[in-house]
Amino acid sequence: MTQFDFGTLKSRYTSFLSRRDAAKELVKFWDNPPGPGVIELAGGMPNAGFFPIDSIDLHVVSHPFEKNHGKNGLKVHMDKQEPKDMPLSMSLQYTNTEGMGPLVSFAKKMIERINPPAYGGWNVCMANGSSDAMYKVFEVLCDEDSTVMLEEFTFSPVISNIKLQGASVVPVKMQLSADPEQQGIDVDRLADLLDNWSVGPYKHLNKPKALYTVATGQNPTGMTLSPTKRRRIYEIAQKHDFLIVEDDPYGYLFFPPYNPKEPMNNAYWDDKSLTVQKYVDDYLVKSFLTIDTDARVIRLETFSKLYAPGLRLSFVVANEFLIERIFNMSEVTTRAPSGVSQALVYGVVKEMGKKYSSESEPSLDSMVTGWMEWPMKVAGYYTHRRNVAFKALYETEGYSKGLYQVMEPSAGMFIDLKPCWPQNELSRPDHYDLIIEKMDKLNQTLLKTGVQVVLGYRMAVDVKASKDTCDFVRITIAYANDDQQIVEACHRIGKGFEAYFSHI
Amino acid sequence: MTQFDFGTLKSRYTSFLSRRDAAKELVKFWDNPPGPGVIELAGGMPNAGFFPIDSIDLHVVSHPFEKNHGKNGLKVHMDKQEPKDMPLSMSLQYTNTEGMGPLVSFAKKMIERINPPAYGGWNVCMANGSSDAMYKVFEVLCDEDSTVMLEEFTFSPVISNIKLQGASVVPVKMQLSADPEQQGIDVDRLADLLDNWSVGPYKHLNKPKALYTVATGQNPTGMTLSPTKRRRIYEIAQKHDFLIVEDDPYGYLFFPPYNPKEPMNNAYWDDKSLTVQKYVDDYLVKSFLTIDTDARVIRLETFSKLYAPGLRLSFVVANEFLIERIFNMSEVTTRAPSGVSQALVYGVVKEMGKKYSSESEPSLDSMVTGWMEWPMKVAGYYTHRRNVAFKALYETEGYSKGLYQVMEPSAGMFIDLKPCWPQNELSRPDHYDLIIEKMDKLNQTLLKTGVQVVLGYRMAVDVKASKDTCDFVRITIAYANDDQQIVEACHRIGKGFEAYFSHI
Repeated sequence: MTQFDFGTLKSRYTSFLSRRDAAKELVKFWDNPPGPGVIELAGGMPNAGFFPIDSIDLHVVSHPFEKNHGKNGLKVHMDKQEPKDMPLSMSLQYTNTEGMGPLVSFAKKMIERINPPAYGGWNVCMANGSSDAMYKVFEVLCDEDSTVMLEEFTFSPVISNIKLQGASVVPVKMQLSADPEQQGIDVDRLADLLDNWSVGPYKHLNKPKALYTVATGQNPTGMTLSPTKRRRIYEIAQKHDFLIVEDDPYGYLFFPPYNPKEPMNNAYWDDKSLTVQKYVDDYLVKSFLTIDTDARVIRLETFSKLYAPGLRLSFVVANEFLIERIFNMSEVTTRAPSGVSQALVYGVVKEMGKKYSSESEPSLDSMVTGWMEWPMKVAGYYTHRRNVAFKALYETEGYSKGLYQVMEPSAGMFIDLKPCWPQNELSRPDHYDLIIEKMDKLNQTLLKTGVQVVLGYRMAVDVKASKDTCDFVRITIAYANDDQQIVEACHRIGKGFEAYFSHI
Repeated sequence: MTQFDFGTLKSRYTSFLSRRDAAKELVKFWDNPPGPGVIELAGGMPNAGFFPIDSIDLHVVSHPFEKNHGKNGLKVHMDKQEPKDMPLSMSLQYTNTEGMGPLVSFAKKMIERINPPAYGGWNVCMANGSSDAMYKVFEVLCDEDSTVMLEEFTFSPVISNIKLQGASVVPVKMQLSADPEQQGIDVDRLADLLDNWSVGPYKHLNKPKALYTVATGQNPTGMTLSPTKRRRIYEIAQKHDFLIVEDDPYGYLFFPPYNPKEPMNNAYWDDKSLTVQKYVDDYLVKSFLTIDTDARVIRLETFSKLYAPGLRLSFVVANEFLIERIFNMSEVTTRAPSGVSQALVYGVVKEMGKKYSSESEPSLDSMVTGWMEWPMKVAGYYTHRRNVAFKALYETEGYSKGLYQVMEPSAGMFIDLKPCWPQNELSRPDHYDLIIEKMDKLNQTLLKTGVQVVLGYRMAVDVKASKDTCDFVRITIAYANDDQQIVEACHRIGKGFEAYFSHI
């Protein structure tokens, strides 16, 4: 494994910086903390005695949707002395911009254990949720003449984000397939696009600096790139020298295969031999980091989907040089993420770690194991919801009549449904030219039957370039209150498709 | 009072936007929330049942530095249903980018009660601390050819912030005086600078778009602009058409005058007739907002100094059009501030409001009154610390020997000390050319006697332009553990000055 030093990374990756970032200078107006015995009268930090909060008690449930209001769960006590390594006197204070020490160490240990990078010389920086992180990443990388590739359907705010830099976005064709080996970015077309850039449709743009990808449980398609595809994409990144920005909010929410004969099978609940280690080793798909021999991958990870979006807490993993640039952006913008959010996460993972530790102060390893039990439980509930939704979608009359197809996702929160257009529609030469009007009409009909969905074309990087594949709707299993509501919604979807197709 | 509508504000203030901001387009991929009865399957929001936190209990002290660990204080309980208008199921969820409704209403009521703008058509947007807010403000306003004026000594990160936009900073001369009428920006010189811009030292730059000022308890000087000076500066802003960015982290920490004969007098503690209303009406200096007939003031207010910096929670007040632009910046960067931080503030202000309310759900007015008691208490402790520090600084041998002067601040956390150079030093023509070396040497000596301070020149916008006034050191009374430590530090400062002057 190559160990990169900072100087090597700097000389290797400086050319990827935006001119604006490269020109950045930071003004620092005081020196490092004084030595022992010196009274600190420098920084404008209020003494912790000025904070109105004396202590915080958290009540933690033992599994999602616990009915008895956390009575079986953990209790976490935090005050100005506790937890020892990250008490409230620290987390309510101005804190390190890169995140508080113990939490950063925890995040590093998570990466080492679950997705160890294939090189040495990487680092971690906390951010205020992945939206904030991706803004900083693209601010560091992009100028007006930069190009970034994205999956043709994607988390739309990232498009605003890249365009805010004045940079250009280029969609990359995807395969929308139930076959795990086929899912996601069409690697041959990606290779072709880049090999023939100078004669292709984007020849007026510079070659891409980066590929942004939601590699697992992609939003909106639910597709997951197989390890083989990841390796091929990485080789293309090496050949054409671009960075890979891997946004992974859904990676821990992996779905075991769906069995239509036993729709309620759920390996998370049925497999009594399931352990955190097995979940990590056998269920989760490995990050691009694990094949990143060149230090060209920037991974975005978040606590939003596994803990709570309201934390606005996430972290970035990348080579030390790029992490320093992202850190510098934070220094002049947000500074540290909320210390309260950090305290809520650290307090809880530490308490969860005690189960796996014989010491009163659990090791980082125990904390990672303790914490990973929670995403595993959450993934179990998502798998259950996936089962409920699939079963309900497959039992409607609309489905029996062949009016829509379910694009089975491999992970995450989303299920996409594709209308099955009748042959006479498909054979009209203007069918896909009118696709937006048709999808809008479908949307209206679905709203009338009582479900709100997201239209695929609204999440297209370039609707024209994706006009023949953008005819799907995205639904989420994340927000419903219970199984019954999922079933009801799916049945309404079936009715909606019936109503729509009866009028065309 | 003029009521501005959005269109008027837009046509009036669009010319202040940076080109980058003006070009910004936001991609929105779903419609507004569905009507009643429609099942929401659109947004990627996890159900609150997936959040591991069941409930949070906060223990709040009744006054700063309370010894019995909050036993007399309030207890705030929050769970997925409580507080009714902003329960954890909301604050742990994705929330409105501009801040959560109840907290935004509270902030608006604070402004209405304490610093009502002199026009109608203003709004409020939450941000992740004032560093984040000012980044967004300058991102919205500044291009590479923009100019921003700042007090010649200022909170240095704001310089990085403006320079990050490629814009230029111009220092504005200050009067460093103990006379409240004289303190802060030298208004005559400001008028002169602008009236004669085209022949002045900055004629190569565009005329300024904005003045950034810490108008009360300025950092680092502790100076406060008098109401008369504020009115004159506002007239200059009207004449030369620039915006005023008023950063006010210290405004609530106002100091009553110091009485050298009764150094421990403290109106906050001694005046038994003191009420929140009296504190607001008679103690606090009114914001530029209160004279802002044109809607040209952007006010930054923060919970960092009054509640806790670790919250990373602040808000911006400005006209609706500019607030929309700042909001748009948040939409593509940070999105909402931490919902946990918002919950901690709202839960506490609501509980504090109950004291002033006969209802179980206190009104916004009661909440503002209840909350303002806390800054009033904090200001009392800061005044006490100011007294302790002044007394200690004035009783040293160094002071008796006339080696330094105390620049008495009117508010805030900082006290500046100026060396009294002997006549033979002052009369050397190169005295001020060598000032940095001298101040660095003083700093080394102070470190040796055991205190760390901030050097004034490090906080100068342009050291050369301020070389004859930058010879001060800033100390803070905010961070010390207790009176004894403040006394010890001040005594060491006296010794440090003695040691320094004995060697020059």
